Amino acid sequence: MAAPTKSSRKLLLLSNSTSHGGGYLDYCEQQIKDFLGRNVKKVVFVPYALTDRDWYTDIARKRFAELGGGNTFRLLKTLYDEKLVEPIRTQVLKHSIPYIGSSAGTNVATATINTTNDMPITCPPTFEALALIPFNINPHYIDSDPSSKHMGETREKRIMEYHEEAHCRPVLALREGSILWVEGNKTTLLGGLSARLFRKGELPAEYSPGDDLSFLLTAGL
Amino acid sequence: MAAPTKSSRKLLLLSNSTSHGGGYLDYCEQQIKDFLGRNVKKVVFVPYALTDRDWYTDIARKRFAELGGGNTFRLLKTLYDEKLVEPIRTQVLKHSIPYIGSSAGTNVATATINTTNDMPITCPPTFEALALIPFNINPHYIDSDPSSKHMGETREKRIMEYHEEAHCRPVLALREGSILWVEGNKTTLLGGLSARLFRKGELPAEYSPGDDLSFLLTAGL
Repeated sequence: MAAPTKSSRKLLLLSNSTSHGGGYLDYCEQQIKDFLGRNVKKVVFVPYALTDRDWYTDIARKRFAELGGGNTFRLLKTLYDEKLVEPIRTQVLKHSIPYIGSSAGTNVATATINTTNDMPITCPPTFEALALIPFNINPHYIDSDPSSKHMGETREKRIMEYHEEAHCRPVLALREGSILWVEGNKTTLLGGLSARLFRKGELPAEYSPGDDLSFLLTAGL
Repeated sequence: MAAPTKSSRKLLLLSNSTSHGGGYLDYCEQQIKDFLGRNVKKVVFVPYALTDRDWYTDIARKRFAELGGGNTFRLLKTLYDEKLVEPIRTQVLKHSIPYIGSSAGTNVATATINTTNDMPITCPPTFEALALIPFNINPHYIDSDPSSKHMGETREKRIMEYHEEAHCRPVLALREGSILWVEGNKTTLLGGLSARLFRKGELPAEYSPGDDLSFLLTAGL
Protein backbone atom coordinates (compact mmCIF):
# COMPACT_ATOMS: atom_id res chain seq x y z
CA MET A 1 0.00 0.00 0.00
CA ALA A 2 1.66 3.23 -1.08
CA ALA A 3 0.55 6.49 0.48
CA PRO A 4 -1.03 8.82 -2.08
CA THR A 5 1.07 11.73 -3.22
CA LYS A 6 -1.66 14.19 -2.36
CA SER A 7 -3.73 13.98 0.77
CA SER A 8 -5.38 16.15 3.36
CA ARG A 9 -4.33 13.76 6.11
CA LYS A 10 -3.81 15.17 9.59
CA LEU A 11 -1.65 13.08 11.92
CA LEU A 12 0.00 13.63 15.28
CA LEU A 13 2.56 10.89 15.89
CA LEU A 14 4.10 10.69 19.36
CA SER A 15 7.21 8.76 20.31
CA ASN A 16 5.68 7.88 23.68
CA SER A 17 2.57 8.56 25.75
CA THR A 18 4.15 9.11 29.17
CA SER A 19 7.38 10.94 29.93
CA HIS A 20 9.50 10.31 33.01
CA GLY A 21 7.93 12.01 36.03
CA GLY A 22 4.76 13.01 34.17
CA GLY A 23 1.27 11.54 33.78
CA TYR A 24 -0.34 9.94 30.75
CA LEU A 25 -0.14 12.45 27.86
CA ASP A 26 0.95 15.29 30.13
CA TYR A 27 3.97 16.32 28.09
CA CYS A 28 2.03 16.67 24.85
CA GLU A 29 -1.27 18.09 26.16
CA GLN A 30 -0.85 21.43 24.44
CA GLN A 31 0.01 19.88 21.09
CA ILE A 32 -3.03 17.60 21.27
CA LYS A 33 -5.27 20.59 22.02
CA ASP A 34 -3.75 22.54 19.14
CA PHE A 35 -4.02 19.53 16.85
CA LEU A 36 -7.66 18.69 17.53
CA GLY A 37 -8.85 22.30 17.83
CA ARG A 38 -12.05 23.39 19.54
CA ASN A 39 -14.53 21.67 17.29
CA VAL A 40 -13.70 18.02 17.92
CA LYS A 41 -16.34 16.57 20.24
CA LYS A 42 -15.78 12.86 19.82
CA VAL A 43 -12.74 10.66 19.48
CA VAL A 44 -12.40 6.97 18.64
CA PHE A 45 -9.89 5.17 20.83
CA VAL A 46 -8.29 1.95 19.56
CA PRO A 47 -7.20 -0.01 22.65
CA TYR A 48 -6.05 -3.18 20.85
CA ALA A 49 -2.40 -2.95 21.86
CA LEU A 50 -3.12 -3.94 25.46
CA THR A 51 -5.29 -6.81 26.66
CA ASP A 52 -7.20 -4.89 29.33
CA ARG A 53 -9.11 -2.73 26.88
CA ASP A 54 -11.66 -1.36 29.34
CA TRP A 55 -9.01 -0.11 31.73
CA TYR A 56 -7.01 1.34 28.86
CA THR A 57 -10.03 3.02 27.31
CA ASP A 58 -10.93 4.50 30.66
CA ILE A 59 -7.45 5.99 31.05
CA ALA A 60 -7.64 7.44 27.56
CA ARG A 61 -11.18 8.73 27.99
CA LYS A 62 -10.06 10.69 31.01
CA ARG A 63 -7.45 12.41 28.88
CA PHE A 64 -9.88 13.17 26.02
CA ALA A 65 -7.64 11.67 23.42
CA GLU A 66 -7.47 8.99 20.78
CA LEU A 67 -4.26 7.13 21.40
CA GLY A 68 -2.57 3.87 20.73
CA GLY A 69 0.29 2.49 22.83
CA GLY A 70 1.24 -1.02 23.97
CA ASN A 71 2.42 -3.81 21.70
CA THR A 72 2.70 -3.03 17.99
CA PHE A 73 2.28 -6.63 16.79
CA ARG A 74 -0.89 -7.10 18.82
CA LEU A 75 -2.30 -3.77 17.64
CA LEU A 76 -1.62 -4.42 13.95
CA LYS A 77 -2.86 -8.03 14.10
CA THR A 78 -6.13 -6.91 15.72
CA LEU A 79 -6.60 -4.14 13.15
CA TYR A 80 -6.33 -6.80 10.42
CA ASP A 81 -8.50 -9.31 12.33
CA GLU A 82 -11.22 -6.66 12.75
CA LYS A 83 -10.83 -5.53 9.12
CA LEU A 84 -10.09 -1.98 10.18
CA VAL A 85 -6.96 -1.26 8.15
CA GLU A 86 -8.68 0.00 4.98
CA PRO A 87 -11.51 1.86 6.80
CA ILE A 88 -8.98 3.78 8.93
CA ARG A 89 -6.87 4.57 5.86
CA THR A 90 -9.93 5.84 4.05
CA GLN A 91 -11.09 7.98 6.94
CA VAL A 92 -7.67 9.53 7.50
CA LEU A 93 -6.48 9.94 3.90
CA LYS A 94 -9.77 10.66 2.11
CA HIS A 95 -11.97 12.24 4.79
CA SER A 96 -9.30 14.07 6.79
CA ILE A 97 -10.27 12.48 10.11
CA PRO A 98 -7.42 13.41 12.47
CA TYR A 99 -5.29 10.52 13.72
CA ILE A 100 -3.25 10.57 16.92
CA GLY A 101 -0.87 7.73 17.67
CA SER A 102 1.74 7.17 20.32
CA SER A 103 4.41 4.47 20.36
CA ALA A 104 2.59 1.39 18.90
CA GLY A 105 -0.03 3.74 17.47
CA THR A 106 2.76 5.65 15.74
CA ASN A 107 4.35 2.46 14.37
CA VAL A 108 1.11 1.23 12.80
CA ALA A 109 0.50 4.64 11.20
CA THR A 110 3.69 4.31 9.14
CA ALA A 111 4.53 2.24 6.07
CA THR A 112 5.50 -0.92 7.96
CA ILE A 113 6.17 -2.11 11.51
CA ASN A 114 9.67 -3.29 10.59
CA THR A 115 11.18 -0.72 12.95
CA THR A 116 9.14 -1.22 16.09
CA ASN A 117 11.01 -1.98 19.32
CA ASP A 118 8.31 -4.32 20.53
CA MET A 119 8.59 -8.03 21.14
CA PRO A 120 6.86 -10.09 18.40
CA ILE A 121 4.40 -11.67 20.86
CA THR A 122 1.85 -12.39 18.11
CA CYS A 123 2.08 -12.64 14.32
CA PRO A 124 0.09 -10.27 12.08
CA PRO A 125 -0.61 -11.42 8.50
CA THR A 126 1.93 -8.90 7.21
CA PHE A 127 4.25 -6.21 8.57
CA GLU A 128 2.65 -3.68 6.14
CA ALA A 129 0.79 -1.16 8.26
CA LEU A 130 -1.70 1.70 7.77
CA ALA A 131 0.77 3.55 5.51
CA LEU A 132 -0.63 6.94 6.41
CA ILE A 133 2.90 8.13 5.69
CA PRO A 134 5.33 6.47 3.22
CA PHE A 135 8.31 6.10 5.60
CA ASN A 136 8.98 4.31 8.90
CA ILE A 137 9.36 5.64 12.43
CA ASN A 138 11.38 4.25 15.30
CA PRO A 139 9.75 5.57 18.50
CA HIS A 140 11.44 5.66 21.93
CA TYR A 141 14.75 6.12 20.10
CA ILE A 142 17.66 5.78 22.48
CA ASP A 143 21.23 6.75 21.72
CA SER A 144 24.01 4.19 22.11
CA ASP A 145 25.66 4.12 25.53
CA PRO A 146 29.39 3.52 25.03
CA SER A 147 29.75 2.60 28.74
CA SER A 148 27.20 -0.21 28.52
CA LYS A 149 28.41 -3.75 29.13
CA HIS A 150 25.29 -5.26 27.60
CA MET A 151 26.13 -6.95 24.31
CA GLY A 152 22.70 -6.67 22.63
CA GLU A 153 22.66 -4.57 19.45
CA THR A 154 22.32 -0.82 19.83
CA ARG A 155 19.22 0.80 18.39
CA GLU A 156 21.29 2.43 15.68
CA LYS A 157 22.74 -0.94 14.67
CA ARG A 158 19.26 -2.47 14.51
CA ILE A 159 18.01 0.24 12.17
CA MET A 160 21.11 -0.14 10.02
CA GLU A 161 20.43 -3.89 9.81
CA TYR A 162 16.95 -3.03 8.54
CA HIS A 163 18.59 -0.94 5.83
CA GLU A 164 20.55 -3.97 4.67
CA GLU A 165 17.25 -5.51 3.56
CA ALA A 166 16.10 -5.18 -0.06
CA HIS A 167 12.78 -3.40 0.51
CA CYS A 168 13.39 -0.81 3.17
CA ARG A 169 12.18 2.71 3.90
CA PRO A 170 13.74 5.79 5.47
CA VAL A 171 13.44 5.61 9.27
CA LEU A 172 12.78 8.69 11.38
CA ALA A 173 13.95 7.94 14.92
CA LEU A 174 11.95 9.91 17.51
CA ARG A 175 13.46 10.30 20.96
CA GLU A 176 11.28 10.38 24.09
CA GLY A 177 9.01 13.42 23.98
CA SER A 178 9.29 13.93 20.24
CA ILE A 179 6.23 14.50 18.11
CA LEU A 180 5.64 14.49 14.37
CA TRP A 181 2.87 16.77 13.12
CA VAL A 182 1.61 15.81 9.65
CA GLU A 183 -0.87 17.93 7.72
CA GLY A 184 -1.45 17.12 4.06
CA ASN A 185 1.95 17.05 2.44
CA LYS A 186 3.67 19.01 5.20
CA THR A 187 5.28 17.55 8.30
CA THR A 188 7.11 19.22 11.17
CA LEU A 189 9.11 17.91 14.11
CA LEU A 190 7.90 19.08 17.54
CA GLY A 191 9.06 18.45 21.09
CA GLY A 192 12.26 19.21 22.96
CA LEU A 193 14.81 16.96 21.25
CA SER A 194 16.25 16.48 17.80
CA ALA A 195 15.27 13.47 15.70
CA ARG A 196 17.62 11.17 13.79
CA LEU A 197 16.92 10.25 10.19
CA PHE A 198 18.32 7.01 8.76
CA ARG A 199 18.40 6.46 5.02
CA LYS A 200 19.85 3.45 3.25
CA GLY A 201 23.42 4.07 2.17
CA GLU A 202 23.64 7.46 3.90
CA LEU A 203 25.02 8.63 7.21
CA PRO A 204 22.31 9.34 9.81
CA ALA A 205 21.25 13.03 9.97
CA GLU A 206 19.92 15.04 12.92
CA TYR A 207 16.91 17.38 12.59
CA SER A 208 15.86 19.95 15.18
CA PRO A 209 12.44 20.74 16.67
CA GLY A 210 10.62 23.04 14.26
CA ASP A 211 12.34 21.58 11.21
CA ASP A 212 10.22 20.95 8.14
CA LEU A 213 10.49 17.28 7.20
CA SER A 214 7.97 17.41 4.35
CA PHE A 215 10.51 15.98 1.92
CA LEU A 216 9.90 12.62 3.60
CA LEU A 217 6.29 12.63 2.41
CA THR A 218 7.02 13.25 -1.24
CA ALA A 219 10.62 12.31 -2.00
CA GLY A 220 11.33 9.22 -4.07
CA LEU A 221 11.47 6.36 -1.59
CA MET B 1 5.54 -28.40 15.21
CA ALA B 2 5.76 -30.06 18.62
CA ALA B 3 9.09 -31.39 19.83
CA PRO B 4 9.01 -35.15 20.32
CA THR B 5 8.82 -36.37 23.89
CA LYS B 6 11.81 -38.63 23.40
CA SER B 7 14.89 -37.55 21.51
CA SER B 8 18.63 -37.89 21.57
CA ARG B 9 19.02 -34.24 20.63
CA LYS B 10 22.16 -32.48 21.78
CA LEU B 11 21.97 -28.68 21.90
CA LEU B 12 24.12 -25.93 23.35
CA LEU B 13 22.15 -22.68 23.45
CA LEU B 14 24.05 -19.51 24.31
CA SER B 15 22.53 -16.22 25.34
CA ASN B 16 25.22 -14.33 23.43
CA SER B 17 28.38 -14.98 21.44
CA THR B 18 30.61 -12.22 22.83
CA SER B 19 30.83 -11.05 26.44
CA HIS B 20 31.98 -7.57 27.44
CA GLY B 21 35.76 -7.38 27.24
CA GLY B 22 36.17 -10.78 25.59
CA GLY B 23 36.52 -12.04 22.03
CA TYR B 24 34.02 -13.98 19.92
CA LEU B 25 33.07 -17.15 21.86
CA ASP B 26 35.83 -16.65 24.43
CA TYR B 27 33.61 -16.99 27.48
CA CYS B 28 32.12 -20.32 26.38
CA GLU B 29 35.17 -21.93 24.78
CA GLN B 30 35.45 -24.70 27.35
CA GLN B 31 31.75 -25.57 27.17
CA ILE B 32 31.93 -25.79 23.37
CA LYS B 33 34.95 -28.11 23.60
CA ASP B 34 33.16 -30.25 26.16
CA PHE B 35 29.99 -30.24 24.11
CA LEU B 36 31.54 -31.24 20.78
CA GLY B 37 34.10 -33.61 22.24
CA ARG B 38 37.24 -34.82 20.47
CA ASN B 39 35.61 -36.64 17.57
CA VAL B 40 33.86 -33.78 15.78
CA LYS B 41 35.94 -32.87 12.73
CA LYS B 42 33.49 -30.78 10.72
CA VAL B 43 30.86 -28.20 11.60
CA VAL B 44 28.18 -26.55 9.47
CA PHE B 45 27.89 -22.82 10.09
CA VAL B 46 24.61 -21.06 9.24
CA PRO B 47 25.50 -17.40 8.62
CA TYR B 48 22.02 -16.21 7.51
CA ALA B 49 21.45 -13.77 10.36
CA LEU B 50 23.94 -11.25 8.98
CA THR B 51 24.23 -10.03 5.41
CA ASP B 52 28.01 -10.35 5.08
CA ARG B 53 28.03 -14.13 5.19
CA ASP B 54 31.63 -14.61 4.03
CA TRP B 55 33.01 -12.37 6.73
CA TYR B 56 30.81 -13.98 9.34
CA THR B 57 31.71 -17.51 8.24
CA ASP B 58 35.37 -16.59 8.35
CA ILE B 59 35.03 -15.33 11.95
CA ALA B 60 33.23 -18.51 12.93
CA ARG B 61 35.63 -20.80 11.08
CA LYS B 62 38.48 -19.33 13.05
CA ARG B 63 36.72 -20.30 16.29
CA PHE B 64 35.94 -23.85 15.11
CA ALA B 65 32.27 -23.57 15.91
CA GLU B 66 28.83 -23.72 14.38
CA LEU B 67 27.04 -20.62 15.57
CA GLY B 68 24.19 -18.33 14.71
CA GLY B 69 23.92 -14.73 15.89
CA GLY B 70 22.58 -11.56 14.26
CA ASN B 71 18.95 -10.89 13.42
CA THR B 72 16.45 -13.59 14.35
CA PHE B 73 13.85 -12.63 11.72
CA ARG B 74 16.39 -12.68 8.92
CA LEU B 75 17.79 -16.02 10.11
CA LEU B 76 14.39 -17.71 10.38
CA LYS B 77 13.14 -16.30 7.06
CA THR B 78 16.25 -17.55 5.25
CA LEU B 79 15.94 -20.99 6.85
CA TYR B 80 12.39 -21.18 5.45
CA ASP B 81 13.40 -19.68 2.07
CA GLU B 82 16.17 -22.27 1.74
CA LYS B 83 13.86 -25.07 2.95
CA LEU B 84 16.22 -25.95 5.79
CA VAL B 85 13.81 -26.05 8.73
CA GLU B 86 12.77 -29.68 8.41
CA PRO B 87 16.23 -31.00 7.38
CA ILE B 88 17.82 -29.35 10.43
CA ARG B 89 15.06 -30.69 12.70
CA THR B 90 15.59 -34.17 11.33
CA GLN B 91 19.36 -34.05 11.70
CA VAL B 92 19.21 -32.77 15.26
CA LEU B 93 16.23 -34.71 16.61
CA LYS B 94 16.58 -38.00 14.72
CA HIS B 95 20.28 -38.24 13.95
CA SER B 96 21.67 -36.55 17.06
CA ILE B 97 23.75 -34.04 15.11
CA PRO B 98 24.86 -31.52 17.77
CA TYR B 99 23.45 -28.00 17.40
CA ILE B 100 25.07 -24.87 18.82
CA GLY B 101 23.22 -21.57 18.71
CA SER B 102 23.87 -18.16 20.18
CA SER B 103 21.42 -15.27 20.42
CA ALA B 104 19.47 -15.48 17.12
CA GLY B 105 20.67 -19.08 16.74
CA THR B 106 19.23 -19.80 20.17
CA ASN B 107 15.91 -18.12 19.36
CA VAL B 108 15.38 -20.16 16.19
CA ALA B 109 16.18 -23.40 18.05
CA THR B 110 13.19 -22.90 20.35
CA ALA B 111 9.44 -23.33 19.77
CA THR B 112 8.85 -19.85 18.34
CA ILE B 113 10.66 -16.53 17.88
CA ASN B 114 7.94 -14.67 19.80
CA THR B 115 10.45 -13.75 22.51
CA THR B 116 13.39 -12.48 20.47
CA ASN B 117 14.67 -8.98 21.23
CA ASP B 118 15.44 -8.31 17.59
CA MET B 119 13.87 -5.72 15.35
CA PRO B 120 11.43 -7.28 12.83
CA ILE B 121 13.46 -6.11 9.81
CA THR B 122 12.03 -8.81 7.57
CA CYS B 123 8.94 -11.03 7.76
CA PRO B 124 9.27 -14.82 7.93
CA PRO B 125 6.25 -16.91 6.82
CA THR B 126 5.58 -17.82 10.46
CA PHE B 127 7.06 -17.21 13.90
CA GLU B 128 7.17 -21.00 14.47
CA ALA B 129 10.83 -21.98 14.62
CA LEU B 130 12.93 -25.16 14.63
CA ALA B 131 11.22 -26.36 17.83
CA LEU B 132 14.22 -28.38 18.95
CA ILE B 133 12.86 -27.68 22.43
CA PRO B 134 9.18 -27.09 23.30
CA PHE B 135 9.59 -23.78 25.18
CA ASN B 136 10.88 -20.30 24.34
CA ILE B 137 14.08 -18.52 25.31
CA ASN B 138 14.72 -14.83 25.79
CA PRO B 139 18.46 -14.32 25.25
CA HIS B 140 20.42 -11.25 26.42
CA TYR B 141 17.96 -10.97 29.31
CA ILE B 142 18.42 -7.72 31.17
CA ASP B 143 16.92 -6.89 34.55
CA SER B 144 14.79 -3.80 34.95
CA ASP B 145 16.66 -0.66 35.97
CA PRO B 146 14.46 1.28 38.43
CA SER B 147 16.63 4.39 37.92
CA SER B 148 16.05 4.50 34.16
CA LYS B 149 14.17 7.46 32.73
CA HIS B 150 13.50 5.67 29.45
CA MET B 151 9.80 4.89 29.13
CA GLY B 152 10.04 1.86 26.82
CA GLU B 153 8.76 -1.40 28.31
CA THR B 154 11.14 -3.42 30.50
CA ARG B 155 12.13 -6.85 29.29
CA GLU B 156 10.10 -8.44 32.06
CA LYS B 157 7.00 -6.51 31.00
CA ARG B 158 7.48 -7.57 27.37
CA ILE B 159 7.63 -11.24 28.32
CA MET B 160 4.57 -10.83 30.51
CA GLU B 161 2.73 -9.27 27.56
CA TYR B 162 3.62 -12.37 25.55
CA HIS B 163 1.99 -14.43 28.30
CA GLU B 164 -1.25 -12.51 27.86
CA GLU B 165 -1.56 -14.10 24.42
CA ALA B 166 -3.65 -17.25 23.96
CA HIS B 167 -0.97 -19.56 22.56
CA CYS B 168 2.14 -18.94 24.60
CA ARG B 169 5.00 -21.02 25.96
CA PRO B 170 7.17 -20.88 29.06
CA VAL B 171 10.05 -18.45 28.53
CA LEU B 172 13.49 -19.11 29.95
CA ALA B 173 15.32 -15.78 30.15
CA LEU B 174 19.10 -16.21 29.80
CA ARG B 175 21.30 -13.39 31.04
CA GLU B 176 24.57 -12.52 29.28
CA GLY B 177 26.99 -15.44 29.55
CA SER B 178 24.31 -18.02 30.30
CA ILE B 179 24.24 -21.32 28.48
CA LEU B 180 21.63 -24.05 28.22
CA TRP B 181 22.99 -27.56 27.69
CA VAL B 182 20.38 -29.96 26.29
CA GLU B 183 21.00 -33.67 25.90
CA GLY B 184 18.06 -35.92 25.10
CA ASN B 185 15.45 -35.18 27.72
CA LYS B 186 17.84 -33.55 30.16
CA THR B 187 18.78 -29.88 30.25
CA THR B 188 21.09 -27.98 32.58
CA LEU B 189 21.84 -24.30 33.08
CA LEU B 190 25.52 -23.33 32.78
CA GLY B 191 27.41 -20.05 33.04
CA GLY B 192 27.93 -17.60 35.87
CA LEU B 193 24.44 -16.14 36.41
CA SER B 194 21.00 -17.38 37.34
CA ALA B 195 18.24 -17.60 34.73
CA ARG B 196 14.67 -16.37 35.08
CA LEU B 197 11.76 -18.60 34.15
CA PHE B 198 8.44 -17.02 33.16
CA ARG B 199 5.30 -19.12 33.04
CA LYS B 200 1.83 -17.87 32.25
CA GLY B 201 -0.09 -17.05 35.41
CA GLU B 202 2.87 -17.65 37.71
CA LEU B 203 5.44 -15.42 39.34
CA PRO B 204 8.86 -15.54 37.63
CA ALA B 205 11.30 -17.98 39.24
CA GLU B 206 15.11 -17.88 39.39
CA TYR B 207 17.26 -20.94 38.69
CA SER B 208 20.98 -21.21 39.46
CA PRO B 209 23.89 -22.45 37.33
CA GLY B 210 24.00 -26.23 37.57
CA ASP B 211 20.25 -26.53 38.07
CA ASP B 212 18.47 -29.30 36.22
CA LEU B 213 15.71 -27.75 34.07
CA SER B 214 14.65 -30.99 32.39
CA PHE B 215 11.06 -30.47 33.50
CA LEU B 216 10.83 -27.85 30.75
CA LEU B 217 11.38 -30.52 28.10
CA THR B 218 8.65 -32.86 29.27
CA ALA B 219 6.15 -30.96 31.39
CA GLY B 220 2.69 -30.24 30.02
CA LEU B 221 3.02 -27.00 28.10
